[in-house]
Amino acid sequence: MAIIVTGAGGFVGRQIVQRLLDAGQSVVGMDTVATGIPTGARAVAGDVCLPAVRAQAFRDGCAALVHLATVPGGAAEADPAASRRVNIDAMYDLLDDAKAAGNRPRIVYASSIAVFGDPLPAAGVDDRTPLAPRMVYGGHKAMMEIAVAMMHNRGEIEGISVRLPGILARPKGPSGMKSAFMSDLFHALRAGEAFICPVSTGATIWAQSVSRCADNLLHALTMDAARMPATRVVTLPAQRITMGDLAAEIARQCSVSPDLVTYQPNAALEAAFGANPPLATPAADHAGFAHDGDPATLVAQALSVIAAG
Amino acid sequence: MAIIVTGAGGFVGRQIVQRLLDAGQSVVGMDTVATGIPTGARAVAGDVCLPAVRAQAFRDGCAALVHLATVPGGAAEADPAASRRVNIDAMYDLLDDAKAAGNRPRIVYASSIAVFGDPLPAAGVDDRTPLAPRMVYGGHKAMMEIAVAMMHNRGEIEGISVRLPGILARPKGPSGMKSAFMSDLFHALRAGEAFICPVSTGATIWAQSVSRCADNLLHALTMDAARMPATRVVTLPAQRITMGDLAAEIARQCSVSPDLVTYQPNAALEAAFGANPPLATPAADHAGFAHDGDPATLVAQALSVIAAG
Repeated sequence: MAIIVTGAGGFVGRQIVQRLLDAGQSVVGMDTVATGIPTGARAVAGDVCLPAVRAQAFRDGCAALVHLATVPGGAAEADPAASRRVNIDAMYDLLDDAKAAGNRPRIVYASSIAVFGDPLPAAGVDDRTPLAPRMVYGGHKAMMEIAVAMMHNRGEIEGISVRLPGILARPKGPSGMKSAFMSDLFHALRAGEAFICPVSTGATIWAQSVSRCADNLLHALTMDAARMPATRVVTLPAQRITMGDLAAEIARQCSVSPDLVTYQPNAALEAAFGANPPLATPAADHAGFAHDGDPATLVAQALSVIAAG
Repeated sequence: MAIIVTGAGGFVGRQIVQRLLDAGQSVVGMDTVATGIPTGARAVAGDVCLPAVRAQAFRDGCAALVHLATVPGGAAEADPAASRRVNIDAMYDLLDDAKAAGNRPRIVYASSIAVFGDPLPAAGVDDRTPLAPRMVYGGHKAMMEIAVAMMHNRGEIEGISVRLPGILARPKGPSGMKSAFMSDLFHALRAGEAFICPVSTGATIWAQSVSRCADNLLHALTMDAARMPATRVVTLPAQRITMGDLAAEIARQCSVSPDLVTYQPNAALEAAFGANPPLATPAADHAGFAHDGDPATLVAQALSVIAAG
């Protein structure tokens, strides 16, 4: 039986699939196209909404499922019906497929800090912060966290939802993420190019490198079930850093001037992504999840993934 | 423009439709069949899952929506796919229809204490209790509470979810509710018949009369929006009463012996419905919702609705 990974050709999915393959695991990689799914995985290319595509993936059962495929925030806002189709309906179908596998497989669901709302509550976020999504993406993620917890509570799956902060750095090019500017900053400075940052120098973000994100998702996949919180949800630890400090560290490591960056804040982006308040994640800390440790490590990890292509 | 009520032929829906009509409101009553929808409402009979049926209901716009139609707990457990179709998919479509009406209509959604899990947390329930649904019904209700809050936060509707406790007394006959025994107790004692209660004499339930429930839902429909909690959810106040005390009060008001009731507890029902812990509802209290006040009033109200047929 294989571990099924959806969004396997994406920038987080590729990391996870490759590490599972390196560990000798049998992996099924699902994505809309096979390009990007690491060699060695059984690639299932197609629309996750289609029963025939899912049936191909679940053909030999399901040892576990890492569900990353999603219509991301900006795209969901532009097309709420597409978000409903993929982020709710297809995911519910996947959960039913996993339940039907009959072996109560572990399911790791990539959720998002968007469940807390937009903007995030100014007083800070911890494990007791009520969910108050405003973006379609965050609303749908919060709904499906409940579906995961409910099916877990029923004994149908062993589920855990993992809320991701900003993940650095995403590949160049359109991502459908409104937070893409955080990654674009890396690409610009690495290329020695000027960059107009759409939030202020003092804008605070929550961030994690893509390799640390993969570590955390794999931890969720393999950790002792007894350490998981009863709520079946963790908000991942993240470094809280200003865009100015992040730019300075990237510039230092890329040996370019931080003056390449000019700041022209957009009010909507500043509110949505530049005002991340203090974050406490006791449940995740207790369960062994972690952030990168310090800004230098965060930036070095992000740059090394970019360099590896 | 009319107020649309789904489940308008049901035992709560009928009360609400009749009171709205009595107050001179224009009402559209939706239900699977027209029987039971009070005369004076524009009846729309059919499957709420069908776009054509919903289009008929929304034909002249939507002043407000009271959404009561549901696949109830026992039926949802027996057929999770039907619950998904009605309790998630059709309701999401209704929310989209209400959003499309364009006037940001108020939506009152009848949710349930099942969102807290089964059994309820022994330490008690208050407005900070995390949701931990285990029944399909409770899971789907919790998911749609989030959909209501998200669409409210987006300014697309003015939404409020209202979590109902046990409502007394439902009509005789199959209801699809696992908690039907609470109402069957009323019907038996009123008829002077013996009743075998499937939970113990000390089983504690949370209860509200059907007329008080209608009061509360109409309060949600008409109250000042400024008094609503930011979470857009209230857990209704309820009386916490033992089955023994409830039976004694019904017997007193019906002038029969409480010895007509014998107790043969079923472990599953006792755990699911007979162990309701202390309940605190500060958000609802602050917003003007209330329970019946005392057991005598609760029972009298329930019996008077039965007597009225």
